[in-house]
Amino acid sequence: MDNLDRNVGLAELSTPVPVVDLDRLARNLDRMADYAGAHGLRLRPHVKTHKAPAIARQQIARGAIGLTCATPREVEVMGEVAHDLLLAYPPVGAAKIERLMALPADIEIAVAVDSAPVIEALAAAARRADRRVRVLIEVDMGLHRVGLGTPADAVALAALARARAPLAYAGICFYPGHLRDPIVPADPGLAALNRTIAAYIHALERAGLAPETVSGGSTPTVWHTHELEGLTEFRPGTYVYNDRTTAAIGACKWDDCALSVLATVVSTAVPGQAVVDAGTKALGREPMRGAPGEGFGQVLGHPEVLVTRMWEEHGVLDLSDTAWRPEVGERVRIVPNHVCIVTHLFDRAVGLRGDTPATEWPIAARGRDPVATADALGPVSVGAGALGG
Amino acid sequence: MDNLDRNVGLAELSTPVPVVDLDRLARNLDRMADYAGAHGLRLRPHVKTHKAPAIARQQIARGAIGLTCATPREVEVMGEVAHDLLLAYPPVGAAKIERLMALPADIEIAVAVDSAPVIEALAAAARRADRRVRVLIEVDMGLHRVGLGTPADAVALAALARARAPLAYAGICFYPGHLRDPIVPADPGLAALNRTIAAYIHALERAGLAPETVSGGSTPTVWHTHELEGLTEFRPGTYVYNDRTTAAIGACKWDDCALSVLATVVSTAVPGQAVVDAGTKALGREPMRGAPGEGFGQVLGHPEVLVTRMWEEHGVLDLSDTAWRPEVGERVRIVPNHVCIVTHLFDRAVGLRGDTPATEWPIAARGRDPVATADALGPVSVGAGALGG
Repeated sequence: MDNLDRNVGLAELSTPVPVVDLDRLARNLDRMADYAGAHGLRLRPHVKTHKAPAIARQQIARGAIGLTCATPREVEVMGEVAHDLLLAYPPVGAAKIERLMALPADIEIAVAVDSAPVIEALAAAARRADRRVRVLIEVDMGLHRVGLGTPADAVALAALARARAPLAYAGICFYPGHLRDPIVPADPGLAALNRTIAAYIHALERAGLAPETVSGGSTPTVWHTHELEGLTEFRPGTYVYNDRTTAAIGACKWDDCALSVLATVVSTAVPGQAVVDAGTKALGREPMRGAPGEGFGQVLGHPEVLVTRMWEEHGVLDLSDTAWRPEVGERVRIVPNHVCIVTHLFDRAVGLRGDTPATEWPIAARGRDPVATADALGPVSVGAGALGG
Repeated sequence: MDNLDRNVGLAELSTPVPVVDLDRLARNLDRMADYAGAHGLRLRPHVKTHKAPAIARQQIARGAIGLTCATPREVEVMGEVAHDLLLAYPPVGAAKIERLMALPADIEIAVAVDSAPVIEALAAAARRADRRVRVLIEVDMGLHRVGLGTPADAVALAALARARAPLAYAGICFYPGHLRDPIVPADPGLAALNRTIAAYIHALERAGLAPETVSGGSTPTVWHTHELEGLTEFRPGTYVYNDRTTAAIGACKWDDCALSVLATVVSTAVPGQAVVDAGTKALGREPMRGAPGEGFGQVLGHPEVLVTRMWEEHGVLDLSDTAWRPEVGERVRIVPNHVCIVTHLFDRAVGLRGDTPATEWPIAARGRDPVATADALGPVSVGAGALGG
């Protein structure tokens, strides 16, 4: 229900702050849910883009089978929203593994793994905790980030996972993030990807390790996910908000960009530009990727105006291609190049109905847990005084 | 006093996390305090680099006359540490101005301003609050970010500030961040800067507006600050930690880099590289500035190894120039290109004695306040469900 007693206008919000067009957000959520339903794909959205239980609940309500996370904190926070969580990241180190083991017992955990040491450490912890953990073997489809590079290696690691109860070998996962352009059925990149996927699936089948789950996809290819043969589930993240890059590569329309950073013009003293209070610490210093485009963000309503220079708390709007001359105090909304970074820079987001703030929510999974307990570490001297505590 | 009962080792910390060599930190703090003392310069450190009251206290204990801040939150948090605070940023908008007015009465506030509307709004609020606010007129020395561009403009704005009690015109400030190389006395950039500073000071003197405070300096020029003629105070930030850029431009030695990001190797599946759990959301995507250097960070103890590719939670260590082959689970420490961004990405930092965690402190001034009160905004529907609240 909308809260119509709201008394805070867009002009009164303290800036910089991420603001989200709620109608666009709902449309983005609906569209992806419809796409998954139409193609019989299991949708497991990645929460890294929003880090917000409030939005994760919307994804589950629209039929997502669970959620994908990248960090222990994301897993812990999202455990309040969904009971089927994939940590699409190798849990390395006792601290991270113990945090997984400490999750409530009714949460089904899956993890993506590409090495034997991680499987062994995870298996030992799972045995101690008497906890089932589903394991997906991460394979490299050409991005060369993480993942095993041959079907034989994947078979060997899958066999190890199956032999280490209470781990439960469940299949494979991959991220074809190197396919930057929108792919079409005739695209050689897609055909090559399908051949590679098939090679992994067939090798696993021959070894008696047929994957129950084949999890993949990426934002640039998201609307072609159903053309990836053998895929059972996908993990899109950016689609909830979209951003300047997503629009530029054709994976959404410009009007599908739901999040912008509300900023205030703080200086027009230097001719030909306006300076806003959104710099690197609000927008991130992310380039456009896979599409042409200078600058670090684009002004809503003034697409000819880009953020061309930044410092930590300053963003420079280049006014050389516009007749628009914003005044000190004027508010602007900037669509960032990469929205997932913006989420990580703020603790709260504001939801808008049109131009009116209607709600706000905590970005609760931002950040990382305390690195040690208060009991373990105390104040310490640094020459003249004490630090910490 | 060191806490010798500590029971958390470097290998047990959850990664990624910023770790600070306490001996280097103390040495950096001492060196700048000594420099200021030797040259009779007032030191007003910028807190943006550490955002931590624990470190600000160390700066004050070593003779800093006050602190410099960039955001309202930094001002609010640092009000607990010092009573003389400069907001080196125009406070635009009622929300920000009211936060300044709400500071405890015993805190002396100064602000940097480059436009009449900000002076008028600030004066109106200060009158209502019956609060003195010192005003520094921001002038542009060639960076072309903010600041007035002519002595005549500076005189006009200074006269306005003086006419608007309880505002108290106090002088000028500037940031010559365009001087990227270390300057020497014979440097034409330094000579030009001194001519420009003199032009502003003389114009203000002729108008009966002699500046009591002339505040300037930047990190690349920091050890030449005493050669800036007429300067009364300076606002260095980066010196507490330093970073890969600071070392590369010669403003510190490599061994003066006090902060690194502790990370864990999570994958070695792709030949020729190791992947760590510090990506864009831990290191920032900052280039080297004013010095050559590829990559986004450099590994302590393995200076031949750089972070050459990043995703949000992945950093790729390129191993093509080293015989070192780190294993999954191994810890590495990465010196970031720009440390002020790293501080903004974490809630806590850990202090080390040698390789042993000795303390930790909150990065309390990170982030920005809630954008609205809980009373003002409530849950709101987004199609299928409710968001916020």
